[in-house]
Amino acid sequence: MIESVDNSKIKELRKLKDKKYRDSEKLFLVEGEHLVLEAYKANVLKKIVLCNYDMDLDVEKIEVSQKVMATLSELPSKVSVIGVCEIKSNELDLNSNILILDGVQDPGNLGTIIRSSVAFNFKNIILSNNSVDLYNIKVLRASQGMNFHLNIVRCELTNKIKELKDNGYTIYGTDVINGIDVKSVKNDKKYAIIMGNEGNGISKEVKELVDKNVYIKMNDKCESLNVGVSASIILYELNK
Amino acid sequence: MIESVDNSKIKELRKLKDKKYRDSEKLFLVEGEHLVLEAYKANVLKKIVLCNYDMDLDVEKIEVSQKVMATLSELPSKVSVIGVCEIKSNELDLNSNILILDGVQDPGNLGTIIRSSVAFNFKNIILSNNSVDLYNIKVLRASQGMNFHLNIVRCELTNKIKELKDNGYTIYGTDVINGIDVKSVKNDKKYAIIMGNEGNGISKEVKELVDKNVYIKMNDKCESLNVGVSASIILYELNK
Repeated sequence: MIESVDNSKIKELRKLKDKKYRDSEKLFLVEGEHLVLEAYKANVLKKIVLCNYDMDLDVEKIEVSQKVMATLSELPSKVSVIGVCEIKSNELDLNSNILILDGVQDPGNLGTIIRSSVAFNFKNIILSNNSVDLYNIKVLRASQGMNFHLNIVRCELTNKIKELKDNGYTIYGTDVINGIDVKSVKNDKKYAIIMGNEGNGISKEVKELVDKNVYIKMNDKCESLNVGVSASIILYELNK
Repeated sequence: MIESVDNSKIKELRKLKDKKYRDSEKLFLVEGEHLVLEAYKANVLKKIVLCNYDMDLDVEKIEVSQKVMATLSELPSKVSVIGVCEIKSNELDLNSNILILDGVQDPGNLGTIIRSSVAFNFKNIILSNNSVDLYNIKVLRASQGMNFHLNIVRCELTNKIKELKDNGYTIYGTDVINGIDVKSVKNDKKYAIIMGNEGNGISKEVKELVDKNVYIKMNDKCESLNVGVSASIILYELNK
């Protein structure tokens, strides 16, 4: 059992709290039994770190003291198992519709959107480079393992959107004022829907590539909805 | 200008970060110009605390140094104005439908639900005693001032629900498995919809008072939606 917080293995794992190291090592951490099992089922689980606990999984096991576990965990409550998972590169399914997130910053919002995407049969998400990291522990917690059911890629948006247009996609923006009520959208073609940043909406360069805007009808006392809510209502409406 | 963080006025204001003091003083704080203006329009603004800033509002003004402001603020970024507001007791409009939140804990979720309630023309919210406090600064920030457009009361749920039933309300629970698709709900009578806690759903005592359950149709890979999202989709669907 590893009892030293300065153990080299533990130090390496602790670095994975930083996006920089996750990107270079192609590894990320998940906390708690539920997410560890989801990672295992998704075939990305490499190792588990255990504290007074066991799980019957065919992967390398590292036993640690409670003190060591506490330095790895980012949850306020005690965690008995942390999974070390491989970042696999995803590919979009270009026969399916796509959700594009342009600068969504809040981890809870991204997690919520991931859950709703699975709920309403959306298979693809594109994250702009300035969106919150998918492997941020709060994003993973809020997405409840649903990220493993989706194709999620991270890239520069303008070129990718041009490529989608060449592939026959209609590009929908979201705009409170101008646009068609999401209830009236007819989906005879493949489409991508863009949701913007919490404070600033869709960026200028991306707006220029939009074919049509959709909106959600609401009382004008309310300026806007939370982005997790508006994305979810749009996916809910478009789900066939 | 107040420069000492130990000034007695400042100490009194700082106590309002705690629910206990907010409840006893019947006062709460809002941060930033937008929320201060919303509080002013709602006729609950008593004083403003300013730091190198001014607002043309007819209320008592307290000028403070940046150091003092920082001890009052709970935001990560610098704030130029904080409003001191009065907690007014609200009354439900018993001719309108009601949203009941049974143990919603996350401040972001409550704020989101408040925004969506205004967007989709719901006027009344009942919070159970174990829900997050409405005057929590994170709740206020996430609700973007929309709380001032609603009747929000906090009370013990079971007696209140019995009272609503006596007043002709139908009580809808939310349940993933049993129930009617929210799309098929006919609203010929007044109704109240109950949303439960993030992890545990609706409590046992409250469940026993439910007349019917509604659900949102979704892919069964997804166990549940974020509670802010499911509340919003239900309000969106029921909005006439």
